[in-house]
Amino acid sequence: MFNWVDGQPADAVSLKDRGLAYGDGLFETIAVKAGQPLLLERHLQRLEAGCGRLAIVADHALIRSELLVFAATLGDGILKLILTRGDGLRGYGINAGAPARRILQGSPPATYPEAHGSSGIRLFPCATRLSEQPLLAGLKHLNRLEQVIARAEWHDADHAEGLMLDMSGRVIEGVFSNLFLVDDGHLLTADLSRCGVAGVMRAELLARAEASGITTRVVDISLEQLQQADEVFVCNSVYGIWPVLGCGPMSWSAGPLTRKLQGIVRTLLGV
Amino acid sequence: MFNWVDGQPADAVSLKDRGLAYGDGLFETIAVKAGQPLLLERHLQRLEAGCGRLAIVADHALIRSELLVFAATLGDGILKLILTRGDGLRGYGINAGAPARRILQGSPPATYPEAHGSSGIRLFPCATRLSEQPLLAGLKHLNRLEQVIARAEWHDADHAEGLMLDMSGRVIEGVFSNLFLVDDGHLLTADLSRCGVAGVMRAELLARAEASGITTRVVDISLEQLQQADEVFVCNSVYGIWPVLGCGPMSWSAGPLTRKLQGIVRTLLGV
Repeated sequence: MFNWVDGQPADAVSLKDRGLAYGDGLFETIAVKAGQPLLLERHLQRLEAGCGRLAIVADHALIRSELLVFAATLGDGILKLILTRGDGLRGYGINAGAPARRILQGSPPATYPEAHGSSGIRLFPCATRLSEQPLLAGLKHLNRLEQVIARAEWHDADHAEGLMLDMSGRVIEGVFSNLFLVDDGHLLTADLSRCGVAGVMRAELLARAEASGITTRVVDISLEQLQQADEVFVCNSVYGIWPVLGCGPMSWSAGPLTRKLQGIVRTLLGV
Repeated sequence: MFNWVDGQPADAVSLKDRGLAYGDGLFETIAVKAGQPLLLERHLQRLEAGCGRLAIVADHALIRSELLVFAATLGDGILKLILTRGDGLRGYGINAGAPARRILQGSPPATYPEAHGSSGIRLFPCATRLSEQPLLAGLKHLNRLEQVIARAEWHDADHAEGLMLDMSGRVIEGVFSNLFLVDDGHLLTADLSRCGVAGVMRAELLARAEASGITTRVVDISLEQLQQADEVFVCNSVYGIWPVLGCGPMSWSAGPLTRKLQGIVRTLLGV
């Protein structure tokens, strides 16, 4: 596999990089199929929105063209883009003259068990809660210690993902996925204005569901609502959709709406 | 100036480093005077405590000896140690086999105006609030986007630091300092069990004050308490103590306890 830093082959980055120093940057993990970066427009939209929120100045046309060339070279696999604020001086103050740094990393296709999608998975009920920070909520930024700690809570293969709540006990998302539930035919997913990552697949599913006449609702979700849901699934832009069969004492079955959306995603991701 | 990565001269770090990917690591910024790292034991204590909390396995004896050699070579300046969880695989899961990575960066002595300490400073009242995450509170970890955003709130030279509150409006700290206030002869500083960085100078001052018979209290502090304080100052292990003269509409004078503690710090830092 191969990597680029600012368009050049490289396997290392400057020690002055603010991504390293402060997690001062954003990332996107993009599935690449037959040389094409999937859901590219949504990834670029989120990245640009993140740059706007964090005041990171980047050349988005250059990023787009670089992603396309990189993906074509990669063929099939995972393309991770890290966009940092570039080199820093000492201290938190922003060096307005430093350009953003583009780090592209290629890796082989994901190798999750096929049964995760076909049969479904169990979620580990993480004790780690998501802190509430509206200024960063929704962004796929590089400050991910909460996810690191949460992912370290379980080691067994019986749990393919973890469930994360916020500090107030609201149901938010998985460690590396967004979460949906089906309630009386409606598709629900958590409001991410206080915490959480607004996933590209989540956005795509909300749009596709609406287009198919399915009512969608982005709301606060309680554990009780989750427990009473007719169907539950997790999603991201790499693996698509996994039905959720259980989490701690709660259990569900893979239902018809989950299966319908899996069909749509299969076309999208070519899996 | 010069840098080491795992004991070797280097100016770059692997793209696989989890410090870059997730901010998965810790740092210490250490003043070095005449080849000696100042407050070294407290820096090492905090680092080791942070490693314990984040389950980062590191050779602390090696870190100590490396810091001593690096500081001796540096002479006078600032030594920044970044300790990351080392190289990662794809995803948040921890690669238990990867050793922690030691990044040492040398830079010249800090060049703050002398008047910050002698006359005092004004704090910018930051709108950015600190989110509450007990699992990370107190640690000097690499997830510092809140500080980056807060520091970007002001550009004028009239404010040498910013004041940060938590989501509930409690007074917590500066962007790169801890905050103390003097109330009726008692020394107060914020409880950092929900958010904030437990500074090395803060710990040293609490210990020194207790040893001098000054009552210290680590408590929740309201804006009203801050406003009514007899004296206010900020501190860190590089610049020592700056009296605070104002923040927004609030104002204070540099008082006798602040001056007394500045005398102690002057001896400690040799400034």
